Amino acid sequence: MTSITKVQLNAPYLILIGNLKDSTYAKTGSGIVQWRPELVAGQLRFDDCEVDLGVPDMTIAEAVNAGARSLVIGVAPVGGVVPDSWWASIEEAARAGLDIVCGLHFKLKDFPAVTKAAQASGARLIDVRTPPANLPVGNGKKRSGKRVLMVGTDCVAGKKYSALALTQCMQDAGMRASFRATGQTGIMLAGEGIPIDAVVADFVSGAAEVISPDNETNHWDVIEGQGALSHPGYAGVSLGLLHGSQPDAIVLCHDASRKVISGWEHYELLTVQDTIEQNLMMGRRTNPGIRCVGISVNTSQLPANERKNYLDSLGQKTGLPCVDPLIDGCSQIVDQIQQQFPEY
Amino acid sequence: MTSITKVQLNAPYLILIGNLKDSTYAKTGSGIVQWRPELVAGQLRFDDCEVDLGVPDMTIAEAVNAGARSLVIGVAPVGGVVPDSWWASIEEAARAGLDIVCGLHFKLKDFPAVTKAAQASGARLIDVRTPPANLPVGNGKKRSGKRVLMVGTDCVAGKKYSALALTQCMQDAGMRASFRATGQTGIMLAGEGIPIDAVVADFVSGAAEVISPDNETNHWDVIEGQGALSHPGYAGVSLGLLHGSQPDAIVLCHDASRKVISGWEHYELLTVQDTIEQNLMMGRRTNPGIRCVGISVNTSQLPANERKNYLDSLGQKTGLPCVDPLIDGCSQIVDQIQQQFPEY
Repeated sequence: MTSITKVQLNAPYLILIGNLKDSTYAKTGSGIVQWRPELVAGQLRFDDCEVDLGVPDMTIAEAVNAGARSLVIGVAPVGGVVPDSWWASIEEAARAGLDIVCGLHFKLKDFPAVTKAAQASGARLIDVRTPPANLPVGNGKKRSGKRVLMVGTDCVAGKKYSALALTQCMQDAGMRASFRATGQTGIMLAGEGIPIDAVVADFVSGAAEVISPDNETNHWDVIEGQGALSHPGYAGVSLGLLHGSQPDAIVLCHDASRKVISGWEHYELLTVQDTIEQNLMMGRRTNPGIRCVGISVNTSQLPANERKNYLDSLGQKTGLPCVDPLIDGCSQIVDQIQQQFPEY
Repeated sequence: MTSITKVQLNAPYLILIGNLKDSTYAKTGSGIVQWRPELVAGQLRFDDCEVDLGVPDMTIAEAVNAGARSLVIGVAPVGGVVPDSWWASIEEAARAGLDIVCGLHFKLKDFPAVTKAAQASGARLIDVRTPPANLPVGNGKKRSGKRVLMVGTDCVAGKKYSALALTQCMQDAGMRASFRATGQTGIMLAGEGIPIDAVVADFVSGAAEVISPDNETNHWDVIEGQGALSHPGYAGVSLGLLHGSQPDAIVLCHDASRKVISGWEHYELLTVQDTIEQNLMMGRRTNPGIRCVGISVNTSQLPANERKNYLDSLGQKTGLPCVDPLIDGCSQIVDQIQQQFPEY
């Protein structure tokens, strides 16, 4: 039997940004530098590149000498395609033994020159959108350690950012916490994880169980959420993730300017309160003690003078700490976790 | 762009039961004969076969002459493997131009001789456990026609049987109704469908939308359910199916003797009432008018003298018709549908 594994990446990374002109498209690379600088050896830029991640420039040979183990394609260009001129470098990196890590929609194995180079050196081609084989069906058995899952009123509601910021804040408060990735960008930041929305439906809760395995009693997994229970396209993913994560706590993530499901404008957003209730009701199935410990709001589209009122009002309605993690940080949510779970 | 299709089978079928000794393992074949005799041309049996489906014996040549278009592997043997001695016949059928239809866990394309024969004749190799490519993400848009979905307190709770019996009973009552298949056996019975639990998680509700497309206003799709919202392994499948089916009505399927989730004995079954409530609450997202029209109970494990009390008591508690479809038929549920939806 093949052992069950997450997608697992080898650091340090050489981050390929090539000849990029616009930093908007370097979000993957800049996210890694922002959140996990310890994973980064350097950046690989071509002469005409106009973006700088603020880490050392390296050739592939220099990166190998410096101990780099993976070339991470650090861009998400329009159309999801890497420019033709980059492939020679990707092939060279594979030949030099660097794993190639890609989160775009194409498959690295469809590029014969890269495949051949990787085979010769023993490097791995890792499409982080491809889930591992042999995932189990969820067994629903209680695991040790504590878990907090980001849930949302919609997709793109700040679940990844909230999980990363909360992990950092818990660690700063002296707690033991690990970010657990469920999407391709998160996997590159965490160095491991499973792209849960690409898993065959029968195995979603099983994949969630693999993502946050047994751990020390006082360790917290901070799990990146996906979709929403009320999303007409993706709710099945969200429920499988909720069941498999068996979270002790949830944080509700919400974009304050959002009135309808993004891209599904014929669906009004469920209220924050109803979304919390629904997640608690369904989540009780695998963790009867589940509770909500805070609300993480993206207020960037609100007028500056409405921001505080919005958060205060939501806090009064729900009795929960409400923060914009980008502005306020997550310490109020961490305080709530420490109050609710004083023993951990 | 490749067009989106369900798995679609060509009838009539020649049903292969080979040298089977025990009718228990011929459930697939006998199910087709029971529910869809009009799809069946005949059966292919070897000399030492001890099972009889009660349809004409045919050689492959005779079946082709009689207009058969598919050889359906009509058995589900222990271990999920077809005996070696059967493969010559499967290859012969493929060479003769019959599609080969298989619901077992192996893939027909992994058998080179069969693949080669099929390529030469133009026959298709159809693994009904393999979903079609290019399924859409669910769009949640209202479709025309009416839909009734089987939901359950567990897997193997009689959802397929209930859907088939209800379809028949609605047709007998003069209603327009079609059975819609979401699992491999159902697909062979319906001649089409999608094995929803094998779909990548992001596309489950989209697959459910494809399974029951727009239809005439007074037409009912009777949709085979899968899993349960409270199932620790499979709930994501059930929620995606519920959302994508956007059912006007649900029928709750339950095994009266079941106390815990089958195979997940550390999980007590949710009550029938709570299961109905949960399905209605989640189902309102894509069909605000959703309601429960009946309870279909497998009472085969109850003592005969407790059966009536059990159903009466459940009927009083829920105010819904409660039947064992195998014993009572589904006419009480059909009556309820006609009362609740008098215009259809």
